[in-house]
Amino acid sequence: MSPMSQATNQSWGGRFSEPTDAFVARFTASVNFDQRLARQDIQGSIAHATMLARVGVLTEEERDAIINGLTDIQGEIERGEFNWSVPLEDVHMNIEARLTDKIGITGKKLHTGRSRNDQVATDIRLFMRDEIDVIEAELTRLRDGMIELAEREADTIMPGFTHLQTAQPVTFGHHLLAWQEMLARDHERLLDCRKRVNVMPLGSAALAGTTYPIDRHVTAELLGFDRPAENSLDAVSDRDFAIEFTSFASILLMHLSRMSEELVLWTSAQFNFIDLPDRFCTGSSIMPQKKNPDVPELVRGKTGRVYGHLMALLTLMKSQPLAYNKDNQEDKEPLFDAVDTVRDCLKAFADMVPAIEPKKESMYEAARRGFSTATDLADYLVRKGVAFRDAHEIVGLSVAYGLKTKKDLSEMTLEELQQFSDIIEQDVFEVLTLEGSVAARNHIGGTAPDQVRAAANRAREALAALKGAS
Amino acid sequence: MSPMSQATNQSWGGRFSEPTDAFVARFTASVNFDQRLARQDIQGSIAHATMLARVGVLTEEERDAIINGLTDIQGEIERGEFNWSVPLEDVHMNIEARLTDKIGITGKKLHTGRSRNDQVATDIRLFMRDEIDVIEAELTRLRDGMIELAEREADTIMPGFTHLQTAQPVTFGHHLLAWQEMLARDHERLLDCRKRVNVMPLGSAALAGTTYPIDRHVTAELLGFDRPAENSLDAVSDRDFAIEFTSFASILLMHLSRMSEELVLWTSAQFNFIDLPDRFCTGSSIMPQKKNPDVPELVRGKTGRVYGHLMALLTLMKSQPLAYNKDNQEDKEPLFDAVDTVRDCLKAFADMVPAIEPKKESMYEAARRGFSTATDLADYLVRKGVAFRDAHEIVGLSVAYGLKTKKDLSEMTLEELQQFSDIIEQDVFEVLTLEGSVAARNHIGGTAPDQVRAAANRAREALAALKGAS
Amino acid sequence: MSPMSQATNQSWGGRFSEPTDAFVARFTASVNFDQRLARQDIQGSIAHATMLARVGVLTEEERDAIINGLTDIQGEIERGEFNWSVPLEDVHMNIEARLTDKIGITGKKLHTGRSRNDQVATDIRLFMRDEIDVIEAELTRLRDGMIELAEREADTIMPGFTHLQTAQPVTFGHHLLAWQEMLARDHERLLDCRKRVNVMPLGSAALAGTTYPIDRHVTAELLGFDRPAENSLDAVSDRDFAIEFTSFASILLMHLSRMSEELVLWTSAQFNFIDLPDRFCTGSSIMPQKKNPDVPELVRGKTGRVYGHLMALLTLMKSQPLAYNKDNQEDKEPLFDAVDTVRDCLKAFADMVPAIEPKKESMYEAARRGFSTATDLADYLVRKGVAFRDAHEIVGLSVAYGLKTKKDLSEMTLEELQQFSDIIEQDVFEVLTLEGSVAARNHIGGTAPDQVRAAANRAREALAALKGAS
Amino acid sequence: MSPMSQATNQSWGGRFSEPTDAFVARFTASVNFDQRLARQDIQGSIAHATMLARVGVLTEEERDAIINGLTDIQGEIERGEFNWSVPLEDVHMNIEARLTDKIGITGKKLHTGRSRNDQVATDIRLFMRDEIDVIEAELTRLRDGMIELAEREADTIMPGFTHLQTAQPVTFGHHLLAWQEMLARDHERLLDCRKRVNVMPLGSAALAGTTYPIDRHVTAELLGFDRPAENSLDAVSDRDFAIEFTSFASILLMHLSRMSEELVLWTSAQFNFIDLPDRFCTGSSIMPQKKNPDVPELVRGKTGRVYGHLMALLTLMKSQPLAYNKDNQEDKEPLFDAVDTVRDCLKAFADMVPAIEPKKESMYEAARRGFSTATDLADYLVRKGVAFRDAHEIVGLSVAYGLKTKKDLSEMTLEELQQFSDIIEQDVFEVLTLEGSVAARNHIGGTAPDQVRAAANRAREALAALKGAS
Repeated sequence: MSPMSQATNQSWGGRFSEPTDAFVARFTASVNFDQRLARQDIQGSIAHATMLARVGVLTEEERDAIINGLTDIQGEIERGEFNWSVPLEDVHMNIEARLTDKIGITGKKLHTGRSRNDQVATDIRLFMRDEIDVIEAELTRLRDGMIELAEREADTIMPGFTHLQTAQPVTFGHHLLAWQEMLARDHERLLDCRKRVNVMPLGSAALAGTTYPIDRHVTAELLGFDRPAENSLDAVSDRDFAIEFTSFASILLMHLSRMSEELVLWTSAQFNFIDLPDRFCTGSSIMPQKKNPDVPELVRGKTGRVYGHLMALLTLMKSQPLAYNKDNQEDKEPLFDAVDTVRDCLKAFADMVPAIEPKKESMYEAARRGFSTATDLADYLVRKGVAFRDAHEIVGLSVAYGLKTKKDLSEMTLEELQQFSDIIEQDVFEVLTLEGSVAARNHIGGTAPDQVRAAANRAREALAALKGAS
Repeated sequence: MSPMSQATNQSWGGRFSEPTDAFVARFTASVNFDQRLARQDIQGSIAHATMLARVGVLTEEERDAIINGLTDIQGEIERGEFNWSVPLEDVHMNIEARLTDKIGITGKKLHTGRSRNDQVATDIRLFMRDEIDVIEAELTRLRDGMIELAEREADTIMPGFTHLQTAQPVTFGHHLLAWQEMLARDHERLLDCRKRVNVMPLGSAALAGTTYPIDRHVTAELLGFDRPAENSLDAVSDRDFAIEFTSFASILLMHLSRMSEELVLWTSAQFNFIDLPDRFCTGSSIMPQKKNPDVPELVRGKTGRVYGHLMALLTLMKSQPLAYNKDNQEDKEPLFDAVDTVRDCLKAFADMVPAIEPKKESMYEAARRGFSTATDLADYLVRKGVAFRDAHEIVGLSVAYGLKTKKDLSEMTLEELQQFSDIIEQDVFEVLTLEGSVAARNHIGGTAPDQVRAAANRAREALAALKGAS
Repeated sequence: MSPMSQATNQSWGGRFSEPTDAFVARFTASVNFDQRLARQDIQGSIAHATMLARVGVLTEEERDAIINGLTDIQGEIERGEFNWSVPLEDVHMNIEARLTDKIGITGKKLHTGRSRNDQVATDIRLFMRDEIDVIEAELTRLRDGMIELAEREADTIMPGFTHLQTAQPVTFGHHLLAWQEMLARDHERLLDCRKRVNVMPLGSAALAGTTYPIDRHVTAELLGFDRPAENSLDAVSDRDFAIEFTSFASILLMHLSRMSEELVLWTSAQFNFIDLPDRFCTGSSIMPQKKNPDVPELVRGKTGRVYGHLMALLTLMKSQPLAYNKDNQEDKEPLFDAVDTVRDCLKAFADMVPAIEPKKESMYEAARRGFSTATDLADYLVRKGVAFRDAHEIVGLSVAYGLKTKKDLSEMTLEELQQFSDIIEQDVFEVLTLEGSVAARNHIGGTAPDQVRAAANRAREALAALKGAS
Repeated sequence: MSPMSQATNQSWGGRFSEPTDAFVARFTASVNFDQRLARQDIQGSIAHATMLARVGVLTEEERDAIINGLTDIQGEIERGEFNWSVPLEDVHMNIEARLTDKIGITGKKLHTGRSRNDQVATDIRLFMRDEIDVIEAELTRLRDGMIELAEREADTIMPGFTHLQTAQPVTFGHHLLAWQEMLARDHERLLDCRKRVNVMPLGSAALAGTTYPIDRHVTAELLGFDRPAENSLDAVSDRDFAIEFTSFASILLMHLSRMSEELVLWTSAQFNFIDLPDRFCTGSSIMPQKKNPDVPELVRGKTGRVYGHLMALLTLMKSQPLAYNKDNQEDKEPLFDAVDTVRDCLKAFADMVPAIEPKKESMYEAARRGFSTATDLADYLVRKGVAFRDAHEIVGLSVAYGLKTKKDLSEMTLEELQQFSDIIEQDVFEVLTLEGSVAARNHIGGTAPDQVRAAANRAREALAALKGAS
């Protein structure tokens, strides 16, 4: 072996006439972050060796030596005893070099019929499959907690807003189920993404397949993949699943940012709709009275991070010619961080949401203000034969009067109301109560307490069905 | 009616004491772009009126008057005779005002039990469903053309690249099927998105549902929706489907940008791999010899536009409290432009791809250079008992020798090759041919011509199955 | 001339053997949007012709014929009489073709020594310079209005928030000057961008310069450019200025989104801090009581659009090899839309901000709640010799007591306060008033009314200095 | 002190009735990444203590104890002996707690008149100023190397491309100066950004300023800031400088991606224009012949990462109400990573660019093909009195003939050329040489070798002037 190749990665030094520049070696190495794939790398290598023995490329002894060696290395890594080397570039070469140290020349046979290109693509997919399953569990826990709270608060009245202006009374349970619907779609998208993650690149080798008599169906089955990828050029360079996952994650974080925004509003002195337990809040180093809703604020802030990762990955892949290019090494850090962010944010929410304490009186009082039953008055007029657009005009004038006289609709006398339409009679006061208003929206999707309870039941069943399906 | 409300939108003027500022009216109006939803708006209104009559809120005469009026208006719009008014803000108020002009007070009853919030959400979903179906047809046409060309070029040899360096010989058909696999995933994602588009917001009214005895299942069935949306607050403010569509579109455009990059490379004098017919190219106003691959360049350029729309929509929805906010008016323009861009780019590609003319000799000659069969030599050594990593080192040194002497591996004598390993024998020259190299990668996903033909068949079946499913 | 070249653009048809596909012609044409550059295109052509005559490439008669022809065409365009043709591709060819129609063969000489590549780059820079000046005027108007309102409200007390929790009392004028500081930075960035816009690409020709004896300093002076661009390859492909402008625009819109968020909060029933005149608001088609803060909501929504354009342009330019590529045609639409959005949003704000009506009593009352003077109590203790961290602890316990007993700090008796520290004496009540609290923050950048007035003066001077500089 | 506050951060525990949840504590802590600001945090604290002593809030003894304590802590951190604690949340509390450990109660006085809100804003600005200076040095080194190489290669002829089609011959030096111009603009933008970084938030305290008699001009001078920030609410929440820096970084990386794309193309077998020394390349684990241009590929890939951070920060700040919100904690990781990426990519390029080895014969040969002097022929015709548009048509037909007969223009006989115009004479062959073509583009910005040398000189002067200015 030539002296220079000692200074560089032994896996490819042959044709090179000078060692890699020291800064370049550090700049291009990925081991600092891709060591996170060690478990999946070993899992993939064990399946690969098993398949190679099955088709006769390795002997059973060689296979066993490799598997035992890898299992030992896994232990070293788990115990923090493994010595990661930057000159060995990446997780793959680190593990293979250690394997050869341990079992000698047989270790060098493991790389038969594969390349780092299909190896890393396989590792990331195994990793993503594992992480998706963890994420799905947290998402399920959050949805469960939300449905339960919604059911408990099916009768709690609060103002519903559009344009952040009081619009109509709704129930707190109904509001929580709106959140839950967002998550239900995220859940579907996560499972749709998982389908496309669970396809095996291994066997694509560098870009064109291999001349060894591999059996990719065997490897796929050993690793739990649904099927081998159809095309080697595509399989080594495809990062769609990473983009699709960060796209799922971006929409999820967008949803969490919306919930967070509302939690921050609701804990303000101005809204005063809920309390968050102290354990989810922090204080101020300078203002002793402060209790800040840190968890929702931070989750809202993390939205940008995940959007950024989506944009990073889309930019990364733009205009890349086939097949693998070094650019693709940049896929891992954004993806890992997106995974961690999603998991932590879901955990924080799954812990926190069931602990939300609604301040029911304050919510009710807010709903009572702001002419929230104006639409009910208009509907009342329509039922008495007024065209909707005309009813709207009548109520608009009543509200203008109420603003001037500082009276809500239910606080006006019959005479006052009749200024605007003589069709109004005593029975109007029934439709102007909050309870009457919410109960009257009694159809699928409406805010009536009975509908909320029915919707919670359906949501629980849908969640169970999804868990069954996955 | 007060004088000021004449100056503003009659649908909400009642409580207002001064008319909308003229610039504000223009700034906040959406009719200039949302008139594109007119057909869907009328379709939704007809279904709504039909349902209202079914549940007794409208009489049959009223229903018929409304439907006839709307049908007339549709004709006016199609014939370009409709007078769009900015003071009437949006497509909904424009059509409703015209309806009332035509049929009188009954026109005002159409808006019973709905709001612009659920109306516009319904319109966009109907629009997206229509557009998705058109896009799917173009995508299918492109995939069909690609599979056919791949099959025709299953034996055409070209260099495969990694890092844009010659790596191993592949077939042009194999390369085309790599493209096709990208589109197959896009196709799946499009259909997954369609599922989530085809859910009906109508009946959510402004945010909380309505007090009228509506039957949302009837309306959903009339409009071909899979089901009514489960929660009114969510339904009026949900724009996930728009983000999911632009996410699909971003990944698709990323794929098209990769294909475009390759087409641009391949038509360069340096690569000289293909010819694009003149009808897909344009020239230069100053350089008379130029024939520019405008279509792939422009498609590559349009990638940014679609990424931008994705980011616009994600930003739009970030931190929005429930339910509808005016911000949401900004969803339409990016979505419309993403739809148009996707449709046009797919059409351009579906027309162009079957017309690609490979320059087979030039491709073959390029594959012959660059030591593209070096891996085959290494594999040959492994089959003779050398460990892969050692074989790699031997070939690396042979290549270094070849670079110095300007000889490709197949151009070296047996003696020259034996300098690096005495295991090499006369039979080595078989594995160093391009035909031998590609034929040897003979497993699912590999580049062997027989595999390419089999893969083309499977791709055709998968496409047919998908079309059957949707 | 061959028949086919009649069907295509006469500017480059010579080497082509079939006409452009009809769809491709429409797909690749830019005239539908770049006609917006007509005025600048003509302005640039007049300067180019003038220079060509100066160096002897055109005769004075030719120059005059060209200038007169172009001036006529400008009139046709302004009067809406110009017939834009898609087969002529772009604004440049449309105008040149019309010129040749009008003045014959001399019109064909105008394109001597230039190319569409440097022509369009020059047009956009002229356009951007004009638009930047319009935008700067609106920005100045907004800053002026904000400074004036701040000065007027220098003594108006409101709660200051961190984490949307009441933190310390501030003055409304101070808050408005915080907004103004954001805009001051935007203003600087705009002028920094203008420097880099105002450089002339003309004379770069297609990519390498021209063989004609052009004098670029003459053209630059005629067009008001600071200097000719230094490198032809760079100049025809540089779109930095477009990205830098959209980056400026993104930060500006981010600022406007923050102000909008606060305006939306403040007009809610819960905050009730301000009123926006009816002319800046709209109502609801279904809820007669609604008055929605449409302008700030819509501006907030437009943030996404501008962020999206920034991302579009960055993506567009990523990895483009020199020099001009067709991709670059995609620069115009995002840039035009960013320009329009910025201008309209600034106009809307410049009109609206001076019309904000603070509800002073409501603001004051909100500041009185929420223990906003807790920091003042801590500072009081420090002045009496307690270490800050210990003072913080003492006040924290007082606040916990206040929460339990529903008393603000100023509502507790001396005895109650002394439970937590016997250092507290009667003089504590002075520091617990809102007026005392704000007045005490009396240093540059602090919220004391006198500081606010001084800051408003400095802001006015800085704005004047900037206007003088530009 | 109550037991619970021991379990949480002692800086704010007073009003809290339960300890922070363990996961929440980890989730919301920033010390894992913000410890990177330790040096600046101590620098800021020393200046703050010095100022507090100057105005009489601290005694000289207290000040000295604090400064000595902080200096010791700095040493502990540099020697890796400092024990970072997650329950202490962030770098600020970690250092302050350690200070109090060391010097007792006086340590608690350091936080007088400031808050973590203005402290962290000050730390980041000090950090950014330091990093900008390091980045500027690398950028200068890269520009220097590029100018030098350009000068050396002022006469080296290569094909210039538009649409990646051969357009006109240019010199390699001219091409390198195009790159250099991009960097010159980046350099200006970096210095413009630095101006806005170098403003001091300290003294803004939590949001409103402080009641202590601080002198912010003193602190600003001690820390080398140009001036104190004008408004406390703005100063604690402003992150414009972070966005502006990542915007600078995005444009810079876009430029580097363009250069990288060209380097990758040029090292391909197809272009074969340059060689990169082995020390900047790596090989393949499976294909022994590969020498991959890893450095440019990786830099190109890192473009996405920086674009992503820009989008993350823009999203982060969207719609944030004043003043500080916890969201802002998310500013650091993207900013730190953008800084590191920019610095490393510039270093890699500054090392690599001077080592580029042009393959002059190969470049020249490529320029000779592809009708690169077609424009020169057209210009020749114009000089003989043909209108440019007609000359273009004539040359187009000559090129079509050349394509059919496989002859470049300079390879045709005079008779062949005269088929297309009888104006062509023997002297045409002078203008059809590459040397003649480039020399003829002899004006500022043109590719003539003399112009390239002059431009290199001007570039060197401009760089020197900029270095003098900063």
